[in-house]
Amino acid sequence: MTTRDFSPARLVTLTTDFGLEEPFVGIMKGRMLRRSPEPRVVDLTHLLPAHEPRLAGFWLGRAWREFPPGTVHVAVVDPGVGTARAILLALCDGHAFLAPDNGLLPEALRGVSPSYRSLDPALAEEISGGRISRTFHGRDLFAPLAADLAVGRLPPGDFGPAATPADPSPLPLPREADGAVEGTVIVSDRFGNLITNIGAGLLEGTTQPVAEIGGRQVPLLATYGQGKDADLVAVINAFELVEIAAPGARAADMPGLGPGAAVRITDGISA
Amino acid sequence: MTTRDFSPARLVTLTTDFGLEEPFVGIMKGRMLRRSPEPRVVDLTHLLPAHEPRLAGFWLGRAWREFPPGTVHVAVVDPGVGTARAILLALCDGHAFLAPDNGLLPEALRGVSPSYRSLDPALAEEISGGRISRTFHGRDLFAPLAADLAVGRLPPGDFGPAATPADPSPLPLPREADGAVEGTVIVSDRFGNLITNIGAGLLEGTTQPVAEIGGRQVPLLATYGQGKDADLVAVINAFELVEIAAPGARAADMPGLGPGAAVRITDGISA
Amino acid sequence: MTTRDFSPARLVTLTTDFGLEEPFVGIMKGRMLRRSPEPRVVDLTHLLPAHEPRLAGFWLGRAWREFPPGTVHVAVVDPGVGTARAILLALCDGHAFLAPDNGLLPEALRGVSPSYRSLDPALAEEISGGRISRTFHGRDLFAPLAADLAVGRLPPGDFGPAATPADPSPLPLPREADGAVEGTVIVSDRFGNLITNIGAGLLEGTTQPVAEIGGRQVPLLATYGQGKDADLVAVINAFELVEIAAPGARAADMPGLGPGAAVRITDGISA
Repeated sequence: MTTRDFSPARLVTLTTDFGLEEPFVGIMKGRMLRRSPEPRVVDLTHLLPAHEPRLAGFWLGRAWREFPPGTVHVAVVDPGVGTARAILLALCDGHAFLAPDNGLLPEALRGVSPSYRSLDPALAEEISGGRISRTFHGRDLFAPLAADLAVGRLPPGDFGPAATPADPSPLPLPREADGAVEGTVIVSDRFGNLITNIGAGLLEGTTQPVAEIGGRQVPLLATYGQGKDADLVAVINAFELVEIAAPGARAADMPGLGPGAAVRITDGISA
Repeated sequence: MTTRDFSPARLVTLTTDFGLEEPFVGIMKGRMLRRSPEPRVVDLTHLLPAHEPRLAGFWLGRAWREFPPGTVHVAVVDPGVGTARAILLALCDGHAFLAPDNGLLPEALRGVSPSYRSLDPALAEEISGGRISRTFHGRDLFAPLAADLAVGRLPPGDFGPAATPADPSPLPLPREADGAVEGTVIVSDRFGNLITNIGAGLLEGTTQPVAEIGGRQVPLLATYGQGKDADLVAVINAFELVEIAAPGARAADMPGLGPGAAVRITDGISA
Repeated sequence: MTTRDFSPARLVTLTTDFGLEEPFVGIMKGRMLRRSPEPRVVDLTHLLPAHEPRLAGFWLGRAWREFPPGTVHVAVVDPGVGTARAILLALCDGHAFLAPDNGLLPEALRGVSPSYRSLDPALAEEISGGRISRTFHGRDLFAPLAADLAVGRLPPGDFGPAATPADPSPLPLPREADGAVEGTVIVSDRFGNLITNIGAGLLEGTTQPVAEIGGRQVPLLATYGQGKDADLVAVINAFELVEIAAPGARAADMPGLGPGAAVRITDGISA
């Protein structure tokens, strides 16, 4: 994949931990629109846990392929804002990604092979009009960079030199051991469902997979609807990951469950 | 009203219980944009109570007429996702509606006369590219169906056979009894105001309407501003429904009030 | 600045306290789209504290200049909805602003020189189609007024007569006393950072500014990252205001801090 593979689609997605209570996201959009009225902007989420780049990466990784090639994906979860951390551009399968160099993009693009560049300080100075605040690079740098990339005014090759991204705190990966698959709950969603890092592909050899979590045995069923209300069930979710849910209750609120909990999957046939 | 009455306006509204913390809504928009860059998408709300289709119907019913004819309204509150429940298309007064067959659309379209169709399984297979997850039909089915309807690529007549929608759990209706009107609080809003199911038309014969709720007598006034801060007042709200409010406080937090509370309106003159 | 200086850019921003749980904002957008499909709408925030026009003004004041001239900024935080309070149009530096006459716009435009007009009742009647509810002027008046201003169908000069806005409850202003600057925390943001009303310009004479708040001495540093995790630091934020933050914690949750707290800045050299 080379930088020439990015053909801008005038489309930007935004993923941040800025919240919705203040107009920070709207301000980013204003800065983009002032630069060019053309790009369309789609919010992925702005309610990510503050200062957890790897969770932002997890969700961006689940979302970006839904958009057309040529989309610019901007993700700003940035505890190091104002420090010397770099700003990265990644190119992958025709999509462009902008984020701080804090592990977010390697998490989002785990398993694929992006090329990375690091923002040239002279471009940073120019695109911000020489006014880079210490606390809001979303407005001062990411917004104008995204707008210019999205309309083709900034060719990716002009972004800065090739770079190797930091990957300081990757999410845990599942592993196979003794005929079982051992994984972890990565995040819980609005319904209290527990999303694990165990991909459906890891279960291919099993006949009747059973998940063990918090001392409970949970069968893998085809749909939520097959479970009883407060019983736990495991399903393969829409991201091809094992998800633990309680159809009529919130699994994440049960004792011993929640993000970080260990999950072990065995084959019920042989157990 | 026939299917020929739908002339697509390249406009989609979204109503879900997906929340804003994860990128589920953004993922739906990506899937739509990948299918066609043309439709404009407006969010109605994504913070509906999880798994209560009838409340989604209530709010969609208050909103849809504000949009131009030719709009596609997508509402996904879907506790039965992944089970065999049908997906419905309704056509009404030039608008199109997509939702699971769980009572949502009959609630939204109470009092009007939509025609309904049920999604043809072959179309489901085709429009999802053969990949229908068990947990996210918003992405796999509703998004591409909405995009295609909104740009005229999918004529409503090709959606599937005529259908009769399920209406398993309708919201209560008001009734007239002994010269009074008896109703129910349907929902409270962000300000703690209580929205009832009593339409303004039911009060036409009364001279000085007084609402009785939680043992209190509440006068019907012209505006919130006429009430004292912590006193309850009743007004006719913007949806032509009786609403109970405490101008300087949250009515919904007072003892005995809240969704489900009984409301009885009599004429203060004759009381 | 005269009304002729507004050249509509088909762009509208929305700032309200309507929340996101009900479809009130979506309904405003529908009413706009039904009037004209052209304007683009950007949400600033809809989660402002209910009924505090001056905080809405504060945030609108931080945001509007990011948008292109010709933008219509609509701000509806309106405890007096349904009463006789006027609706104002302000014009300033090529931007247009619509809000209730309750202090919101003077707060947003503090320090600049807008011209104001008050909505002509005949225009209100006409643009609402004669149906003005008592509780939702966002839908019945602000939405169609914004749509018509944004596409040039309503020239600002036709809005109504020149007016002087009410300014009943301005946010406190900082003051200089005995070589110190005394100010106030205006608002805390999602991260628990405390935003004060002290502009960077007031610190120009100081060499090592130190902020005193809740009995603590807080140094003014260049970035959050320079502070230790739970220690307070002061920075100049992206709005050129002094902001107090605890890099690894929520400053707003510490005893004696929060909106309304007094902040006093002295020069550490001379202290």
